[in-house]
Amino acid sequence: MSQDRAADRVVPVVLSGGVGTRLWPLSREGFPKQFWPLLGADTMLQATVARATGPGFAPPMVVCAEAHRFLVAEQLRDAGVAGARIVLEPAARNSAPAIAAAAILAAEEDPHAVLWVMAADAAIEDLPALHAALGRAAAAARAGHIVAFGMRPTFPETGFGYMETGAALPGLDGAHAIASFVEKPDLARATEFLQGGRHLWNAGMFVARAASLLAELERLQPELVAAVRAAVDGAGRDLDFIRLGASFADAPSISVDYAVMERTAHAAVVPADLGWSDVGSWDALWQASPKDAGGNATHGPVSLLDARDCYVRSEGILTTVIGLRDVVVVSTEDAVLALPRDRAQDVKKLVEQLKAEKRPEAGAHRRMYRPWGHYEGLIMGDRFQVKKILVRPGEKLSLQKHFHRAEHWVVVNGTAIVERDAERILLRENESVYLPLGCVHRLENPGMIPLTLIEVQAGSYLGEDDIVRFEDTYGRA
Amino acid sequence: MSQDRAADRVVPVVLSGGVGTRLWPLSREGFPKQFWPLLGADTMLQATVARATGPGFAPPMVVCAEAHRFLVAEQLRDAGVAGARIVLEPAARNSAPAIAAAAILAAEEDPHAVLWVMAADAAIEDLPALHAALGRAAAAARAGHIVAFGMRPTFPETGFGYMETGAALPGLDGAHAIASFVEKPDLARATEFLQGGRHLWNAGMFVARAASLLAELERLQPELVAAVRAAVDGAGRDLDFIRLGASFADAPSISVDYAVMERTAHAAVVPADLGWSDVGSWDALWQASPKDAGGNATHGPVSLLDARDCYVRSEGILTTVIGLRDVVVVSTEDAVLALPRDRAQDVKKLVEQLKAEKRPEAGAHRRMYRPWGHYEGLIMGDRFQVKKILVRPGEKLSLQKHFHRAEHWVVVNGTAIVERDAERILLRENESVYLPLGCVHRLENPGMIPLTLIEVQAGSYLGEDDIVRFEDTYGRA
Repeated sequence: MSQDRAADRVVPVVLSGGVGTRLWPLSREGFPKQFWPLLGADTMLQATVARATGPGFAPPMVVCAEAHRFLVAEQLRDAGVAGARIVLEPAARNSAPAIAAAAILAAEEDPHAVLWVMAADAAIEDLPALHAALGRAAAAARAGHIVAFGMRPTFPETGFGYMETGAALPGLDGAHAIASFVEKPDLARATEFLQGGRHLWNAGMFVARAASLLAELERLQPELVAAVRAAVDGAGRDLDFIRLGASFADAPSISVDYAVMERTAHAAVVPADLGWSDVGSWDALWQASPKDAGGNATHGPVSLLDARDCYVRSEGILTTVIGLRDVVVVSTEDAVLALPRDRAQDVKKLVEQLKAEKRPEAGAHRRMYRPWGHYEGLIMGDRFQVKKILVRPGEKLSLQKHFHRAEHWVVVNGTAIVERDAERILLRENESVYLPLGCVHRLENPGMIPLTLIEVQAGSYLGEDDIVRFEDTYGRA
Repeated sequence: MSQDRAADRVVPVVLSGGVGTRLWPLSREGFPKQFWPLLGADTMLQATVARATGPGFAPPMVVCAEAHRFLVAEQLRDAGVAGARIVLEPAARNSAPAIAAAAILAAEEDPHAVLWVMAADAAIEDLPALHAALGRAAAAARAGHIVAFGMRPTFPETGFGYMETGAALPGLDGAHAIASFVEKPDLARATEFLQGGRHLWNAGMFVARAASLLAELERLQPELVAAVRAAVDGAGRDLDFIRLGASFADAPSISVDYAVMERTAHAAVVPADLGWSDVGSWDALWQASPKDAGGNATHGPVSLLDARDCYVRSEGILTTVIGLRDVVVVSTEDAVLALPRDRAQDVKKLVEQLKAEKRPEAGAHRRMYRPWGHYEGLIMGDRFQVKKILVRPGEKLSLQKHFHRAEHWVVVNGTAIVERDAERILLRENESVYLPLGCVHRLENPGMIPLTLIEVQAGSYLGEDDIVRFEDTYGRA
């Protein structure tokens, strides 16, 4: 089969649909785990994309929820990633429909394209080993296989799926058939697997040609493919996003493991030692983090006294621990969680409880991302509230008005253009403007640096829904 | 001895000089324990004063640090306490000099006055028992004794001082001589005391005539009395405060126990079961608090999952605990602490560590009290900060200017009069004013309700010390 160099490149497909509930209060629906810098300075998404960047790779395709589109776009832009395609799911449908959409989109350009499917939120320590394993997996994929990465277990994890290594595939270095799949074994069995050396963790990372994947999906999940194909045909496409059509929601919610891997004759596995972690819980994050002499991993303003083997993380509030062992303490701007490391799986239950208690902290962060930048509430008073607003260079908010509140804007960094009814006002640092109740107004950052302003709202009702939009750059009017 | 009814009244002397470091991060030098509502809706100071209010009591005398004078005044005013005298110590000198000052001041009016000396930060459950014990103590005091309250131990505490009950004093119901004093016994001895029934906790609560106290202080601590007397003679007195003179600092720093009780022949003790607690640590506060079925005591927005025998407190941030036992988790607006209850004494060590790390949270809260009200920082940016300012009705800030910052003020509640150079501007709710760098300005609340405003500062230096005061109602110019 003859191919040019571009067609040889691997297409990274990054699945960014997860919520990471077990990392609450950091990870929440509004701002999940993959968007946080859990290990090092890059966010998990940025680190994931960085591992799939270079001469051998096409620009990545990132599949995410509509609600996260500006987060993904901003983080990719921030990381200097060019040419990425951001595919928006109108509803979460597990991995198989997301992968099907990516395969259909990739096949439009080249059915022979080799896709490397990966989660946006895992950690991998050994990059050379990863790329070596990817080379072996891509070779097997080019030979028609659908190839999983199999991570050699380092402890008897009971929460993962395992794959049993089968016969070596002739002529394909390091690739094996898969003898069996075992989902979430009990501890005895997981310990046996760890000692036996034949069972590998399923890391949710796959390599396959778009055409091979689609052929098996068509055969095994025809309704799924039909729904996703209709969603791709009906997709809205602009420079930034591919918005899948509503029929995407008709696809069954199913993982690629159940839908394809456990049922296809073409499955293969490439065993690998990558220092991989799903970073799926606070305990897993502790395991994957560098530690001090006392076994503690910390992040942010933290002070410890006689703590041992703890994970202590702060997003700003001074967080202190005395005399605790094997405990996790995490603080964000609006929530604190303390628990033993070995109860890390129960964070999910706590979040359910918080939802039942109707706590907004269960799902939303105080900082809200918008297409033009973000804002955060500083204080909510009786009939006033104060927000800090950041508008990225060149961006503008919608032309809008409010029925129940007036607003004061004070520019503290950068430059703003404010439309107020018929006026157009240039505001520099340390200048302010008053927007009386009912006036039609718009905020824009005409400058080259971010615009930060403090907004003081006053009125009898201060909900986000008191807004009439007349015009919007981002299609929200 | 014949007395009128007024002279029969007991004079409460409330010592409010403590810092309560072991209740960090709630209690800090800037806003210590006695000013917090640790149990119930009243602050500890308010609850203490409320126990000494009624027909049998003269208005209280509160001895506190100068830095806390407006806090004390505001909390007494808030509790509706009239006629209190607030005595300001220019330096902390332990209990004996503070009591000497109170005794000298009380003796000015009536040397026979019976003083009831108490800490501002203890909890007492059984009010009728307290007043019955006080009756017995006052009778012994009128007979010339210096009478301690002896709390019957309920557990083998090793951090307290103990008094051994001696012979009953003839004719004085319930009062005994003190056979011996034991400071901080080891656990074996404390357990023995608990079983023996003769040893009582010294709760730092005393009853004595002003004259009896002064006579013994003069005899045993002549230099102390000389220094304190000079401080009283040199005191500044106005409607609100008695500011002791600088010579107060010449008095030795010594407790009334060492200075008098352990050395006087007139010492007596009245045993009592009051449900008393010094609330000296998070563990003590847990002991004294009401608990749920799982033994947990909580305060504020808290959510627990499988927690047992924990103390979990939040001053606003949602604070959650999973699966911990016998642990304390406390969050304030700017700090979090987690520790096992049995390490509660080590909070002091942590605060030392935080001071060494130069963390401002070690000593100061974000809300700062001022004679005119208070303010709190909402956000500190690169070259800006935002504060919420509350000015009490009728109060005004100093006439001032800044060299490095301009200010925007937005009134969100109440009414303000703003002087700006030669102008005098009335600002209503939802109006704002700009104070350019270098202008001379002043803020006043002419109204009947508190004035709340949002201040946005912009400038190259935003420290509190960039202020020139020209005139000040509170003597700070």
